[in-house]
Amino acid sequence: MGWKVDELHKLLNPSSVVVVGASRKPGKVGHSIFKNLLESKVRVYPVNSQAEEVLGVKCYPSVLNLPEVPDLAVIVVPRLSVPQVMEDCGKKGIKYAVIITAGFKEIGEKGAWLEEEVVEVAKRYGIRFIGPNCLGVINAVAGINASFAPEPPLPGKIAFISQSGALATSILDWSVEQGVGFSKFISIGNKADVDEVDLLKELKDDPDTGVILLYIESITRGPEFIETAYEVSKTKPIIVLRLGTSEAGARAVSSHTGSLAGSEAAYSSAFKQSNVIRVGSVEELFDLAMAFATQPLPSLEKGVAIVTNAGGPGIAATDACSKLGLELASFSSATVDRLRQRLPKKVQVRNPLDLIGDAEAERYRSAFEELIEDESVGGLLVILTPQDVTEPEKTATYLAEVAKRGGKPVVACWMGGKMVREGIEILKKHGIPNYATPERAAYSLYGLYLYARLRQKAVGKTRKPPEIEIDEESIRKIIQLVRSVGRQNLLETEAIEILRACGIPTPRGGLAHDLDEAMKIAEEIRYPLVMKLVSPQIVHKSDIGAVRVGIESPREVEDAFAILKWRTEAYAPFAEVIGVLVQEMVMGGKEVVAGMYRDPCFGPVIMFGLGGIYIEAVRDVSFRVAPLTREDAEEMVREIKMYKILRGFRGEPPSDISSIVDVLLRLSTLSTRFAEILEIDINPLIVLPEGRGCVAVDARMRLSPE
Amino acid sequence: MGWKVDELHKLLNPSSVVVVGASRKPGKVGHSIFKNLLESKVRVYPVNSQAEEVLGVKCYPSVLNLPEVPDLAVIVVPRLSVPQVMEDCGKKGIKYAVIITAGFKEIGEKGAWLEEEVVEVAKRYGIRFIGPNCLGVINAVAGINASFAPEPPLPGKIAFISQSGALATSILDWSVEQGVGFSKFISIGNKADVDEVDLLKELKDDPDTGVILLYIESITRGPEFIETAYEVSKTKPIIVLRLGTSEAGARAVSSHTGSLAGSEAAYSSAFKQSNVIRVGSVEELFDLAMAFATQPLPSLEKGVAIVTNAGGPGIAATDACSKLGLELASFSSATVDRLRQRLPKKVQVRNPLDLIGDAEAERYRSAFEELIEDESVGGLLVILTPQDVTEPEKTATYLAEVAKRGGKPVVACWMGGKMVREGIEILKKHGIPNYATPERAAYSLYGLYLYARLRQKAVGKTRKPPEIEIDEESIRKIIQLVRSVGRQNLLETEAIEILRACGIPTPRGGLAHDLDEAMKIAEEIRYPLVMKLVSPQIVHKSDIGAVRVGIESPREVEDAFAILKWRTEAYAPFAEVIGVLVQEMVMGGKEVVAGMYRDPCFGPVIMFGLGGIYIEAVRDVSFRVAPLTREDAEEMVREIKMYKILRGFRGEPPSDISSIVDVLLRLSTLSTRFAEILEIDINPLIVLPEGRGCVAVDARMRLSPE
Repeated sequence: MGWKVDELHKLLNPSSVVVVGASRKPGKVGHSIFKNLLESKVRVYPVNSQAEEVLGVKCYPSVLNLPEVPDLAVIVVPRLSVPQVMEDCGKKGIKYAVIITAGFKEIGEKGAWLEEEVVEVAKRYGIRFIGPNCLGVINAVAGINASFAPEPPLPGKIAFISQSGALATSILDWSVEQGVGFSKFISIGNKADVDEVDLLKELKDDPDTGVILLYIESITRGPEFIETAYEVSKTKPIIVLRLGTSEAGARAVSSHTGSLAGSEAAYSSAFKQSNVIRVGSVEELFDLAMAFATQPLPSLEKGVAIVTNAGGPGIAATDACSKLGLELASFSSATVDRLRQRLPKKVQVRNPLDLIGDAEAERYRSAFEELIEDESVGGLLVILTPQDVTEPEKTATYLAEVAKRGGKPVVACWMGGKMVREGIEILKKHGIPNYATPERAAYSLYGLYLYARLRQKAVGKTRKPPEIEIDEESIRKIIQLVRSVGRQNLLETEAIEILRACGIPTPRGGLAHDLDEAMKIAEEIRYPLVMKLVSPQIVHKSDIGAVRVGIESPREVEDAFAILKWRTEAYAPFAEVIGVLVQEMVMGGKEVVAGMYRDPCFGPVIMFGLGGIYIEAVRDVSFRVAPLTREDAEEMVREIKMYKILRGFRGEPPSDISSIVDVLLRLSTLSTRFAEILEIDINPLIVLPEGRGCVAVDARMRLSPE
Repeated sequence: MGWKVDELHKLLNPSSVVVVGASRKPGKVGHSIFKNLLESKVRVYPVNSQAEEVLGVKCYPSVLNLPEVPDLAVIVVPRLSVPQVMEDCGKKGIKYAVIITAGFKEIGEKGAWLEEEVVEVAKRYGIRFIGPNCLGVINAVAGINASFAPEPPLPGKIAFISQSGALATSILDWSVEQGVGFSKFISIGNKADVDEVDLLKELKDDPDTGVILLYIESITRGPEFIETAYEVSKTKPIIVLRLGTSEAGARAVSSHTGSLAGSEAAYSSAFKQSNVIRVGSVEELFDLAMAFATQPLPSLEKGVAIVTNAGGPGIAATDACSKLGLELASFSSATVDRLRQRLPKKVQVRNPLDLIGDAEAERYRSAFEELIEDESVGGLLVILTPQDVTEPEKTATYLAEVAKRGGKPVVACWMGGKMVREGIEILKKHGIPNYATPERAAYSLYGLYLYARLRQKAVGKTRKPPEIEIDEESIRKIIQLVRSVGRQNLLETEAIEILRACGIPTPRGGLAHDLDEAMKIAEEIRYPLVMKLVSPQIVHKSDIGAVRVGIESPREVEDAFAILKWRTEAYAPFAEVIGVLVQEMVMGGKEVVAGMYRDPCFGPVIMFGLGGIYIEAVRDVSFRVAPLTREDAEEMVREIKMYKILRGFRGEPPSDISSIVDVLLRLSTLSTRFAEILEIDINPLIVLPEGRGCVAVDARMRLSPE
C-alpha cells in the first residue's frame, strides 16, 4: 500500500503546541482551547499580537517569534488571516496544524476559494492539517486536549473520527456520563487535507486503539477509502455511520458540507467492499463500540446462549438474534445434564434458558458456569429483570467472574431503572457492556460475529482485481470514430463492438445497409434471427417497434426489413438510418442486465440485475465500485433477491453464473481504463444454462463530452 | 358490538379487596400484595387461616367469614387450593378475582388441567378473573396497587396490558426513573378468563386512559381481537408489541405460554385489520407511548419541521423521516421571509433548519415562533447539541412556551449527558417528550402521523364484510360426495365446481372419460385448449407432465389424450384415472394466486400473490384474516411488491383488479361458512385486462378429517 507509517503520529501525539489566536476572554474558542491545552501534558505557547499573556503564560506576537518549533499549531484566528498564519507556520518549520476556524467551503463558493488558498500554502510547506471548521483533536490516553470541547473524554480503546463537530460534542458529553472511554477523538471538519483515509492509516497500528468509529457525511477519495479500510479492518473493526442515505437527507448533506454527495448505491457498495461494519444510527454506533472495546470475538461456528429470568425479554432476544441471522447454540448433552442437576426441576433446559422469575444469583451462576464452558456456545446474552427475589448486583458479580474465564463475548441486559442501577455499575466496572433492551444486546453480539466473519474472510487476502486482457487499441479506435462525428451516444453496433473487444460474447451477425446485405448476413448465421434498426436518433428502439424477433426464413427477413423501413418513416421521420442489425436470436436463456455509471466520489460503479418486466418493477439490482475483485463480482450476482432463479429454481437448469462474473469483471476493466465512457448498459445480457456462457444481445454506451 | 360497558369496572376500581393468602412474612408475595393494598385507597381484608393478624389487620380464616362482600379477591394461595378459594369466593358472592398464583397452563398438561378446574368454578359462579400466573393489577390514578410490584407506578395517561409479568416489573422500575406515568397497569398472565379483548373494551371509555399499550405473546380470540381493537382505535391509539415473530422466537413463546402460537402472517394481518400500531421492541413501545400521552395529533396533510444546531443530527432526523414516509414541510414564503429577517445571514432558511453551532436560545425561539404558526408545518422535531454558547435550559423553556400555543405535536432530542440533563428535565416537566437520538424522535412523530391516518380512515366506518351470495347447497353436496368416498383432497374438477358455486369465474370445459367425450367438449368450446389429467393420486400434475396446453385442433386433442394416457402409465402406474379435464385456454392475462389456510388463533386466513416462477422465488404474497371487508381485499392486492405490474407497467394494459378483489371476498365467504375446508389454493388465477375479469384455471382444496 506504500503509505508512510506514523506519518501523522506527531499530529496526534505532539509534545509542544502553539495556539494561534489564543484568547484571554473566557467563552471565546481561542480561550477554551488554550485552557484545555494548558491542562494537557504538553508544552503550550499562546500566539496573540494583542496580548502580553494568556492565563499567565507569556504571549508571542507571531509563530515566528516562538522559542522552539512546536510539533503542532492550533489555529483559531479569523478566517481571512488563516492563509498568512499557515505561511508563518511553514516558515517556522511547523509540520502539523489543526484549523478550528470556520467559514470555508461549508459556506459556499467564496469560502471554498479561501480554503484552496490554505491548501496551497500547506502544500508549499509540506504542512499536514486537520480542518478547517472543526472541533479539534483529543488524545485521551496521552491526556492531550487540542479542542474546544468543554470536558475531555475518558481514556479508553475507542477512536472516534467525526465529520460533524456538533455531533462530537453531544457524544463527548454522553460518553462521560456512560463511562465510555476513547483513545483518540478527532473532529475532521471540512477535511481539506487530512481525511478519514489518512487517519485510518495512522490508527491502524495505534496500540491505544482497539476499534475505530467513523461518522462521515461524504467520502472524497472513494477507491482509496475502500483499499485502506479493507487493510485496516484486518486488524481492527471499523464501524461506520453515514447519514444522508435518503434523498432529502442527501440534499441536507450537500448543503451542510458543501460537497457533492455520491449515490447511496456507491456508498453501500464501498462499505461492503471495504469490510467495514455499517450501522444506521448513533445509538448502534456506540452499542457496537462498547462491545468491541470490551469483548473478545466469538468463534464463528458457535451459537449464542440466552439466559433470562423473564420469558418475554428472552423471546425478544431470540427474535432479534434470528432477524440478525445469529444462530442460537444447541447446548451439548453434557451441559444439559449438568444444568438439569444444578437447576430446579421447573426450569426447562433449552435455549433461550428461562431461569424463571424467582431465580436468585446462585441459579444464574449455575447457568453461567455451565454455558461458558459449553463447546457449542460462542457468546452469552444475559437478561435480568428485577423481580421479588432477584439479586441484580450479586448476579452481575457472578457474571463478571465467569466472563473472565471464558474468552467468549458476554453482553448484558439488566432491564429497569433504580432497582438494577447498582448491578449495571458492577457490570460496567468489569467491562461487560449493558444494554437497555434485549434487542440492542443482540445487535451488539451480532456486530462481534459479523466482524469475526469479515476478518476471517479477509485473512491473508488483498483486494486484487484480476488482470484481464482487453483489446484497447480497437476500443480506442471506435471511441475516436464516434467523437470524430461529434456524437456522445454510441450506436448499438458500436457498443457491441466495444464489448466484443473486451472479450464479452456478443451475438453473431452484422450491420446491413440494404436488403441484399441483410439476406447475405442471414444466410451466414442460423435462423431464427433478430433484426433491429440502427440510428443515432433512436435510442429506445422498442418504443417505435424497431426490433423484430423470431425471424425464421428469407421471406420473413424481407418482410421485417420492409416493416422496419415503414415504421421508421411513419414514427421517426427525422431519424438518420445507418442500417439494420441482423443477429442470431439467442434462445433458452435468462435475461439479466449489467452496466456501469460514474459516481462523483467513487468513480465507476458496476451494476447487475435480473432483466424483464417483473424485475424492473422490484428494482432487483446490485452494485459494486470498480475495480472489482472476483469476489466482488461473485457477491454481486449472489446479492440480488432473485438469485435462486439463476441457481436453478423448480427444476430449471442452473444458469452459467461464472460467465456473468466474467462479464462484470470485463466491464470493470473497461470502465477503469476508459474514463471517457460515462455509462454502459447491457440489456439484456442473455445467460444460458451452465457451461454455455452468456451473450450481450443489446447494449448502449455514452461518452463524456470531449 | 354488544358488550356490556363497565363490565370490568369494579375489577379495576374496587372499593374493597380481600387478599386470600395474605402473609406476615416480608419477602413473601402474599405479604407484598397485602402491604401494597394496605397503602392503597381501598378497604382491605387478609385471609389466612394460620394467622391472627397481618400487618396489624385482623385476619379471617376464610373468605366466607368476611364482614362484607369485597369487590375483588386477590388470590395468592398454593395452586392446588385455588379452585377451593374460588368456590368460597363464589359462595360469598364476590364477582372479581385476580389469581397471582403460578403453576398452571404455563408448566404443561397437569397445570392446564388445574386451570380448567378454576375456569369451571368461575363460570359456575359468574366470577370474572385475571390470571393465573400474573403480577396483579394497578390502578395508578385511583391509587390502588393490587400487585406485588415493589413500587407503584406514577399516575399518568398510559394503560399497559402485559402478558409478561417479568417484563412488567422491569418497565415499572424504568418508568419511575423516566417519569412516565400510567392509568392502569395490568399483568394478564395466562388469561384463563379476562384477556386483552375484555380489557380493551373496558379501557375504551376509561377517562383516565389516553393510550393503550399491549404486550402480548399470543392472542386466543383472533376475530374478536380484530373487531374490538378496530372499534377502540377510533378513540384511543393501541400500541402493540408482539414478540416471537421469528421461528425460534415462536418456539420460545409456545414453551413459555403453553399456548399454540398462530402464524406471524396471521398476526401481522390481524394487526393491520384492527388499526393498531405495531412496534418491534419495548423501546419503540414506550417511545410512542410518551408521544401519545403528551402530544396532540398532527394534521395529516402537513409536514414535519426539523430544527437543529448541528448538521449531522439534522440529517439523521431527515433520513429517519424519509425512511418512515414522513414528509418534511415546505415552509410558506411568508415564514421564509420572516425567518430570514430574524435569523443571522449565515443560517440558510430551509428544512431541516440548521441554526448552526453558535445558536443561543433566542435564535431557537425565533425559529419556534415562526414554525409553529406556519400553515404548512404539522409537527416540530427539535434537536439540540451542547456546544459553546448553547443554552439547553432556556431553549427548553422557550420550546415549552411555544408548544403550548400550537396544537401541534412537538418532540425533542437534547443530545448528550450532563450538559443537557437540566434541559431535558424542563422539557419533561412541560410534557415534551425527549429522545436520546434523532431517529427515535422521528419515530415517535411517525407514530402520531400513523395513528392520525388510521383514525381518519376508520372514522364513521365499521368492519363490515360485504354480504355475498354463494350456492351453499351445491357446495355442501360436493363436500358430502368427497367425504362419502373417504377422500380429504378434492379433485381439480370438484374444486373448480365449488369455486363456480361461489361465483368465481372458471374456464369453460368439462371432464372427459374417453377420447370421444373429449372431442365433444372440444367442439363446444373455442380453441386453443388445455387438457389435464384428473386423478386423486396426482396432486402436482405438472411434475409428471400431465398438463397439455395450446391445443389447436381435433388432431392435437387426439394426440394430447394419447400422451396423457402414456405419461400416466409410464410415471404414475398406481394412479386411479378419473378422466381428462378439457378446458378453454385463457390467454392474454397475468398469473396470480389466491388461497386460504386456517390459523389456530385466527381461523381462516386469505392469501394473495402474483404467480409464476419469479414471484415464487421472492414470495411476494399478502394475507388477511377472514372475514374480509372490501377494503381488506383491496389492500391485499395493493400490498404486494409487484402491484405495479397489475396496475399496468411499461405500457401494458392494467389488469382487472376489481375482479381479484371479488374473488378474495368470495373465498372469504366460502371459508367462513365452510369450516370443513382446511385449505384452498387457486393457482393460477388468470387476471385479464381491466373490464374482462379473471378466471380460476386450476385449484386445489383440502377438507378436515370428518
